[in-house]
Amino acid sequence: MSKSQDFQTWSFAIQQQMELALGAVLPPAYQLPQRLHEAMRYAVLGGGKRVRPLLTFASGEVVQASVERLQYAAAAVELIHAYSLVHDDMPCMDDDVLRRGKPTVHVEFDEATALLAGDALQTAAFEAISARSLCDEPADQLKMVKILATASGAAGMAGGQAIDLASVGKPLSLPELENMHILKTGALIRAAVLLGSYCGEALPQAERDKLDRFAKLMGLAFQVVDDILDVEADSATLGKTAGKDAAHDKPTYVSLLGLKEAKLRAAELEAEALDCLSVFGARAERLRELAHFIVHRAF
Amino acid sequence: MSKSQDFQTWSFAIQQQMELALGAVLPPAYQLPQRLHEAMRYAVLGGGKRVRPLLTFASGEVVQASVERLQYAAAAVELIHAYSLVHDDMPCMDDDVLRRGKPTVHVEFDEATALLAGDALQTAAFEAISARSLCDEPADQLKMVKILATASGAAGMAGGQAIDLASVGKPLSLPELENMHILKTGALIRAAVLLGSYCGEALPQAERDKLDRFAKLMGLAFQVVDDILDVEADSATLGKTAGKDAAHDKPTYVSLLGLKEAKLRAAELEAEALDCLSVFGARAERLRELAHFIVHRAF
Repeated sequence: MSKSQDFQTWSFAIQQQMELALGAVLPPAYQLPQRLHEAMRYAVLGGGKRVRPLLTFASGEVVQASVERLQYAAAAVELIHAYSLVHDDMPCMDDDVLRRGKPTVHVEFDEATALLAGDALQTAAFEAISARSLCDEPADQLKMVKILATASGAAGMAGGQAIDLASVGKPLSLPELENMHILKTGALIRAAVLLGSYCGEALPQAERDKLDRFAKLMGLAFQVVDDILDVEADSATLGKTAGKDAAHDKPTYVSLLGLKEAKLRAAELEAEALDCLSVFGARAERLRELAHFIVHRAF
Repeated sequence: MSKSQDFQTWSFAIQQQMELALGAVLPPAYQLPQRLHEAMRYAVLGGGKRVRPLLTFASGEVVQASVERLQYAAAAVELIHAYSLVHDDMPCMDDDVLRRGKPTVHVEFDEATALLAGDALQTAAFEAISARSLCDEPADQLKMVKILATASGAAGMAGGQAIDLASVGKPLSLPELENMHILKTGALIRAAVLLGSYCGEALPQAERDKLDRFAKLMGLAFQVVDDILDVEADSATLGKTAGKDAAHDKPTYVSLLGLKEAKLRAAELEAEALDCLSVFGARAERLRELAHFIVHRAF
């Protein structure tokens, strides 16, 4: 099997595992209140690249964490990501009608249900990360809850969305744009990596710092590539409306740097991220493959 | 000092303490993104009866918990409550313009900011309950996170809101109405009591069960009284729009039972709740006073 085939097999297995884990963590669709539960399951299941869970699992390989633990840590991160998409798509935010090739939640259901489903998905994330033992030490698992909360809230993802909202039609400098993305997308990607590293053997602080730095660079690279794809790909490939950032007059890496420079920036971030992994040797092979996938993906 | 003066002094001291604790837990208004932080603080600070924090503190007296711990447990519950009000008031939900005598968050700011502020307040709750030691045993604190999540999500408050939403204009039976309220209001009130009981000395399971039963009955009593006040009080006293449930054709205890029977029901619930506290003797005096306050309040 070639290296890229092996990576595809691994990714596919985790995507399957996550579909099961997320399905088990979410309330059943037949149970009351059905419409809420259906909307929650609709928002989460049956799609998505599961980039964050892949990062959690790849990071878990560094510390030889078990699938049993990793799937719930990864589910927590993915539920936060899913809730943010549901709310982000709502009419008062991005007002988007297409997501992962399907109508968005407020279109398929209604606005009130989308609002509640997003709310309940966020709560489900904190339930997933607290309901069973994911660490040898409960005190470390409390740290995981704190890491997820900080990454998701006003000092992380939600804060980044607020800055994004305020930036429509405004000229942002490159540092301002980077700061926005470090919060909006980067914080949760960073959490995905860190949480995986708590599920197995204890890691010396210096190595955890390396992992954290890798995660931060990956978060930025992910966004640069997203901006490039928003310009280069079409809606069918993306499974969401292409070119919407330009249409909304939102600043992007491409609008600030130009396409060629943006691609260079992505390559630089990848190289720097890979550097951080050298200390881990073969244990970080999946993380290396993922870094390559994130930077060179076509969707 | 009379008994009722003493209770008022105690309540006032905790309300002051909570204002400080919530102010410290929330991101500062001068920090970016300012509009988000301002909206979060606007939604939480400077008002509210703080019934849930009072319950947490009163329950904490049963186990001799410290103020240092109780204030963060109580803050977590209050932040969940505050986020639910922000989202509940939005146009796609109850579309309300007045809350605690002030314009609602989406009126004072805008819908997108209200959505994000509510989201970030929920996250802040889980940060407040995980960021510092609130229990002697970290494993017990993980249970607290789980209790808060279960009470707030699809199996609790958010689920109750979804049932409420689906019930507009529909005839609900009394058991259906009770089930809705047990989730919508009751679950978080129950969590407020339970969380306080985890912040101090360990409690035998039988006693924790009594406290839990008390909390469940209080949750129901709180809602019955809310329905009575919605009919009897005016908007100025309530600080929110009076009579809105009847106007929205929502079933209430009063519409199902009549005013007289609803008042009887509240008295029965209070009596049964007080019964549950007998095992605790003098340690539950604050809980008894609170039960009386909740059932006999005029706002």
